[in-house]
Amino acid sequence: MSLLQQTVSTIRLADRALLPAIQAHLDDLTKPQGSLGRLESLALQYCLATQTLQPVQGKLRLYCFAGDHGVASEGVSAFPKEVTPQMVGNMLAGGAAINVFTRHAGAELRVVDMGVDADLQAAPGLIHRKVARGTANMAAGPAMSREQAIQALEAGITLATEAAQDGVTLLGTGEMGIANTTPATALFAAYLGCVPADITGRGTGVDDARLQHKIQVIERALSINHTRLGDPLDTLAALGGFEIAGIAGLVLGGAAARVPVVVDGFISTAGALAALRLQPAAADYVFFSHLSEERGHRRVMEKLGIKPILELNMRLGEGTGAALAMSLVAAALKMFNEMATFSGARVSTKDP
Amino acid sequence: MSLLQQTVSTIRLADRALLPAIQAHLDDLTKPQGSLGRLESLALQYCLATQTLQPVQGKLRLYCFAGDHGVASEGVSAFPKEVTPQMVGNMLAGGAAINVFTRHAGAELRVVDMGVDADLQAAPGLIHRKVARGTANMAAGPAMSREQAIQALEAGITLATEAAQDGVTLLGTGEMGIANTTPATALFAAYLGCVPADITGRGTGVDDARLQHKIQVIERALSINHTRLGDPLDTLAALGGFEIAGIAGLVLGGAAARVPVVVDGFISTAGALAALRLQPAAADYVFFSHLSEERGHRRVMEKLGIKPILELNMRLGEGTGAALAMSLVAAALKMFNEMATFSGARVSTKDP
Repeated sequence: MSLLQQTVSTIRLADRALLPAIQAHLDDLTKPQGSLGRLESLALQYCLATQTLQPVQGKLRLYCFAGDHGVASEGVSAFPKEVTPQMVGNMLAGGAAINVFTRHAGAELRVVDMGVDADLQAAPGLIHRKVARGTANMAAGPAMSREQAIQALEAGITLATEAAQDGVTLLGTGEMGIANTTPATALFAAYLGCVPADITGRGTGVDDARLQHKIQVIERALSINHTRLGDPLDTLAALGGFEIAGIAGLVLGGAAARVPVVVDGFISTAGALAALRLQPAAADYVFFSHLSEERGHRRVMEKLGIKPILELNMRLGEGTGAALAMSLVAAALKMFNEMATFSGARVSTKDP
Repeated sequence: MSLLQQTVSTIRLADRALLPAIQAHLDDLTKPQGSLGRLESLALQYCLATQTLQPVQGKLRLYCFAGDHGVASEGVSAFPKEVTPQMVGNMLAGGAAINVFTRHAGAELRVVDMGVDADLQAAPGLIHRKVARGTANMAAGPAMSREQAIQALEAGITLATEAAQDGVTLLGTGEMGIANTTPATALFAAYLGCVPADITGRGTGVDDARLQHKIQVIERALSINHTRLGDPLDTLAALGGFEIAGIAGLVLGGAAARVPVVVDGFISTAGALAALRLQPAAADYVFFSHLSEERGHRRVMEKLGIKPILELNMRLGEGTGAALAMSLVAAALKMFNEMATFSGARVSTKDP
C-alpha cells in the first residue's frame, strides 16, 4: 500500500465522546457561557481533533509550497512567471509578507520547492521536493501525471509527519506560484460543479480583457480534461499544481497525525478540498483561516458551508491569512488552558 | 479652561498631506497592490494618525475600566452586581479572559476602578480613580452629575497622557460593570436616534421576559432624562457610567496625544461615541476592533458607517476584542516597516 493510501486509511473522524467534557470546561471559565464565540468553537474543535482536555501548545509551523504552472504561458496572470523564484528568494531573505506574519504569530516558516521552474540554490529554510520544473499546460492536457500528483501529495504528507515528530502542534499552509488562481479555480469548478465564469477572479490583478481570457482558458482545461475528472486524485492531477497537491498532502498528513492544519485562502482551499475529497474525515482537523478577496472564494465557502475565521479583504496568499488565524487559534487554546474557572475564582454564577 | 475643554480643543483631524507617501510605500511592498486589504488600511490609518512613514512600535497597553450601575437594581442583568468586584479580583489575579488575551497580544493590562460599588484593596495593576460607589439609577434620574462625568472623562484623559509618556504607541479599551449594556444601549438611542427595542440585547444572557423589562427600563431612562439630553456631555452624564466616561476620556486623551486607540465592543463603542460627539476629529485616532454579538452593535456600526476589523461572535467585553485587534494593528505596522520593497528585493513588477 502506498504512503498516500496508508495515510488516507489512517484518518478517522474525531471521537465525539469527549465533546461534553470540553463544553463543560468552556462553560466553567469565568465568562458568560458562549460569550467568547468563535474563540470557544476554535478551542472546542482543536480539543476534539487532538482528543484532549489539556491541549498542548507546542510549535506553530507554516509550510509555504511553491510551484510553477504550464498554464502561465496562456497569459492568465498579471505577473510574469519569473516572479515565482524571485518571491521564493524574497521569502528566504525574510522580506515577504509571510515572513512578517509568521514572525508576528510566533510560527516557524518553511518554504518548499514543489516545482518551481528554476534551479533554486540550497538555503536555510528551503526544502527541496521538486517534482518537475513547472506543470504542463492544463489547457492542452493534464497538468500532472497521476504519479506526479501522488509524489507531490506524499511530499506534503511526509512534511506533516516530520512536523508532528518535531513537536509542532499546529500547522499552516501557504503557497507561491504565478498563475495558480487558474488551476485552483478549475479545481473548484470540477469538485463543486461551479461555473467558471461565476468564480473566476482577477488573481494578482488582471484587467477585464484578461479576466475573460482566463475564464476561457479554464473552460478549455475542463473540456480537454473531461475524461480525467472521474476521481479526486485524477482531477487533482489534471487541473492542479505541485504546490496545490503539496497542500493537500499536508492536510492529509496533519489529519493522520492529529495535528490540526490552518488553511490559507483561495489556492490553499483548493488543496484542502482535494484532501477532503480524498478523505472527508480530514475535515475535523482543518481550520479555514480567512475569506479571501479573490472573487470565487465566498461562493466556494458557501458551497462548503464554511465560515472562515477572518475576513480582512486579503488576497495575497503565501499563507498570510493562515498565519494571522494561527495566532487566533493559539489565543483560543490559551483561553482554554489559562482562564480561571467559576468555582476556582469564587466568582458568582448567573442568577437562578 | 478645564482639562476636558483643553483636550477637546487640542484634537485635530490628521493632516492628509502625508497620504500619497504612505500609499506609495504600501504599493512598493513586495505584493500585488492592495492585496493585504484591511491590513493595509490599518497601517495607512495608523501612519496618518501619527504623521509618520516609519511608525514606531512601542508598548501596547489596554485599560479595563470598571464601574457599577444604579440601574442594576432594576434587575436588567443575568448576573448579580457582586460580580463586578469579583471579576476585578479575577483580573488582578490574572485569570480573566482579558489577562489571557492581553498576554497573547503582548499588551500591558491596567485595571481602573472608576466606580466599583465595593472598597477594592490596592493591588499591582489596579489604578484607583473611583468617582463614587456606582452611579445612580438612570431610570429614576441622571446616572451621574455633570461634574462626576467630567471627573471620569478627565481620569481617562490623564491615563492616555501618562501612557504616551510611558512610550505606549497603541492603546486599547475594555470594561467590566454588571448591567452596563443597559446604559450603553440608552446612549446609542440618545446619540443615534435608535429605538431601544431595536438595539437592546441580552447582555450576559437575560431571558425573554427580562429582555422586555430591560427595554422598558431603557425607555424610562430616556423619558425621565429627556430634558438632559441636549448636549453630548449632559447625555453622557444622564445615561452613561463611570467606566463608559473613562473610555470616552481615554479616546480623547489618545487622540490629543496622537496615540491611536483600539476600541472594544458594545460598551466601549458607547464610550467612543461619546468621545466622537464631544470631538468628531477624534475619529482619525480610533480603530473599532470587532463586531460584537450583542444585538444592537451591528445596527450601531451600520449607522456609524464603520466595518469593525473582526467578527468573531464575541460578546464578553473586558477588552477581549480590542486585545485581539491590537495584535492585528501591530501586524499591520510590522508589514509596513519590515517587508521588502519591489526595487530593493529585485522582484519583477506587474506586466505592463
